[in-house]
Amino acid sequence: MTDSPLQFELHTTDGRARRGKVTVPHGSFNTPAFMPVGTRATVKGLMPRDLRETGSEICLSNTYHLNISPGPKIVKKMGGLHHFMGWDAPILTDSGGYQVFSLPKAKLDEEGVTFKFEQKGGKKITLTPEKSMQIQEDLGADIIMAFDVCVPHPCEYQDAREAVYRTIRWLERCKEAHSRKDQALFGIIQGSTYADLRALSTQLTREIDLPGYAIGGLSVGEGHELMMSSIDQTEPGMIKEKPRYLMGVGYPEDIVEAVARGIDMFDCVIPSRYARSGVAFTRRGRFRVTNARYRSDKFPLDTNCNCYCCRNFSRAYLNHLINTNEILGSALMTLHNVTFYQDMMRAIRMAIEEGSFEKFRQAFLDEYLSDDKKEELGFDDLDGRYDQEDFGWDVKHSVVPPTDIAENLEKTEPVDEVAGPRRRIEKIKNLGDD
Amino acid sequence: MTDSPLQFELHTTDGRARRGKVTVPHGSFNTPAFMPVGTRATVKGLMPRDLRETGSEICLSNTYHLNISPGPKIVKKMGGLHHFMGWDAPILTDSGGYQVFSLPKAKLDEEGVTFKFEQKGGKKITLTPEKSMQIQEDLGADIIMAFDVCVPHPCEYQDAREAVYRTIRWLERCKEAHSRKDQALFGIIQGSTYADLRALSTQLTREIDLPGYAIGGLSVGEGHELMMSSIDQTEPGMIKEKPRYLMGVGYPEDIVEAVARGIDMFDCVIPSRYARSGVAFTRRGRFRVTNARYRSDKFPLDTNCNCYCCRNFSRAYLNHLINTNEILGSALMTLHNVTFYQDMMRAIRMAIEEGSFEKFRQAFLDEYLSDDKKEELGFDDLDGRYDQEDFGWDVKHSVVPPTDIAENLEKTEPVDEVAGPRRRIEKIKNLGDD
Repeated sequence: MTDSPLQFELHTTDGRARRGKVTVPHGSFNTPAFMPVGTRATVKGLMPRDLRETGSEICLSNTYHLNISPGPKIVKKMGGLHHFMGWDAPILTDSGGYQVFSLPKAKLDEEGVTFKFEQKGGKKITLTPEKSMQIQEDLGADIIMAFDVCVPHPCEYQDAREAVYRTIRWLERCKEAHSRKDQALFGIIQGSTYADLRALSTQLTREIDLPGYAIGGLSVGEGHELMMSSIDQTEPGMIKEKPRYLMGVGYPEDIVEAVARGIDMFDCVIPSRYARSGVAFTRRGRFRVTNARYRSDKFPLDTNCNCYCCRNFSRAYLNHLINTNEILGSALMTLHNVTFYQDMMRAIRMAIEEGSFEKFRQAFLDEYLSDDKKEELGFDDLDGRYDQEDFGWDVKHSVVPPTDIAENLEKTEPVDEVAGPRRRIEKIKNLGDD
Repeated sequence: MTDSPLQFELHTTDGRARRGKVTVPHGSFNTPAFMPVGTRATVKGLMPRDLRETGSEICLSNTYHLNISPGPKIVKKMGGLHHFMGWDAPILTDSGGYQVFSLPKAKLDEEGVTFKFEQKGGKKITLTPEKSMQIQEDLGADIIMAFDVCVPHPCEYQDAREAVYRTIRWLERCKEAHSRKDQALFGIIQGSTYADLRALSTQLTREIDLPGYAIGGLSVGEGHELMMSSIDQTEPGMIKEKPRYLMGVGYPEDIVEAVARGIDMFDCVIPSRYARSGVAFTRRGRFRVTNARYRSDKFPLDTNCNCYCCRNFSRAYLNHLINTNEILGSALMTLHNVTFYQDMMRAIRMAIEEGSFEKFRQAFLDEYLSDDKKEELGFDDLDGRYDQEDFGWDVKHSVVPPTDIAENLEKTEPVDEVAGPRRRIEKIKNLGDD
């Protein structure tokens, strides 16, 4: 153990995939890890105890939004972000850079970014590396992010190159400005989708000694293929002994594929944002529960999910709640979707431990992706590549198709050997019809 | 035990106040009881397990709204309202009468009420006693309400008199149409604020044998005084051996005063609706947590409340959540407010059991009401009327004033002898200031 605010244990690898554990002042989390996003010091709709129940071991909060409300001084006065939001496990805050760069009238120079707060009566603010560090110190997260230059996609080579160098200069300023010894500062690698700039940025960033490093500037509309090739250009140059965080990613297929390329940490708003619009993630892909076909569907979102939502409520109930804008609909759907993501991460970790990650990956994608999506992503021959008996993700257990269930109720036979789900399915099938 | 779907045990009385227990097919609830309102098969923002945690033993749902979405046939197909909404304890549904009478273009005749559903593409619907019974049978609540004629306030004598008679004719049709043996049908007494009509309606209604009776047509803008005098004109004529339900009431002071007049059951949207706009109920009255003075207030909504919200979150956090329209703000505030109501009901029941209800009533109102409100309701000399040592409601425990706490933090000393709250107060006071 060192004085470092972050320890990373790399337990095992399976191909390029890594299984490890990160320890920070507020506890540990297993990697590969998914961090749900609690923008304004709350994962929308979930009480901290609900969030814990999803299997989440760390969550993320946003510097830009917390700077608007309630303001870092208030969070500090309230005993810091953990105490304020009632989440006593690890927290990561972003630097605010991603948000301010996406503002339409943000003005960038070497000092920082100047923009107007929409909410604060149009108050003009300059966010700099030093200012971002100050805010993040007041918030008090375990892991904080450097203030970097995010370029859009697509981006001219010259602009991307300038951003790489400025990001490095700003990283040095961040490191200099950061004084709290109980927070781990991560550097961010940029370079857009240019292979040589990615390699350059990786090299320059790793030369600055930090407890962890992130890949930034992806998940900005470049698509799955470019995202993966950018990871391929970046990750191999990163330090093996430190955690690697792919920022803002993503869909389940993105996460599985990035784990296969050596990534340890992920965050994304997708499970919670999709939840609020009624989109459920399941082992057989995602579906929109607000669709009319689910109006009287007695089955849970995912029969093999053990979350509170799936144990207690039907698609019909969620269809009703989301369609009538009931708060509970957002809360229950979020609880399920985040649980789905965490179940997936647990299965990923188990597969890596067992040395069967490659098979898991094929089987997961085969079950999860639609045929169209398989073709689009180049996974058209997944079937022959794995043996169902061979890994932890319960493909056989998804006895309930996500669609057509109401119509095909009598045709669906449980093939599951686990007593719990089977009993539940029997009970559901015996509900009174009219 | 009889074949009746409802048994009422009257355990003890204290003055006119009554302490009892109602048993229906899905369980028992203690009276006096407060029923939180779950309009569309959800108490907004609360998972059923959260609702249970508030101490709620029964909840209410609305026929009119459930008839719009998801529709009674779907609820029936889903195994009934209990299974649909995941609430396995008693449920009461209203008849839809109150809602349809408040629609601007509702047309009333002897058959029923004809109106247009706003949501269902303006579809024209006639709601009749028979139709209301059919819908409520499909929904499957333990207690269902007769379809009655609700008159507005103020109301001409002649109109109120006609409504009394029509309500009786409709009650007979409801009883005739109602066939499920596992649901208890309650009759509703009308009569507006006319003493002789209240007496008449009470007499006519009790002549029809039913498991319980309700006082309707109040809480429609008549004010506290007229509400209480109307109860005084109604309740004494009601059958002693059956539960008495005062519909749609109300504020804590209304409930305490109605309990003193012999009422057993209450429902109201106030705790949950006020919660969503940031108004908290506490032992020292209610306050608006969105007020700027609470922006950095470290104390919970009510220091002596043991709900999940008060155990974990500050007024500052709730101020932030409600001001930024975060769903969690509504959920946490609702959890607290409903808990406050249920704690009050528990204290009421204990006081009746101990024969100290009159002292509880004075002490509660003295602590809860503002001076203005005391004067308005005629409670200006409460101080001399009770001894603080003498009853169950912990007046001494409210060590934290609901206002000015941030400014007076150092001046507030805990006088509470209970270890839990004292430790919590010490911990809060030791939070870092800037």
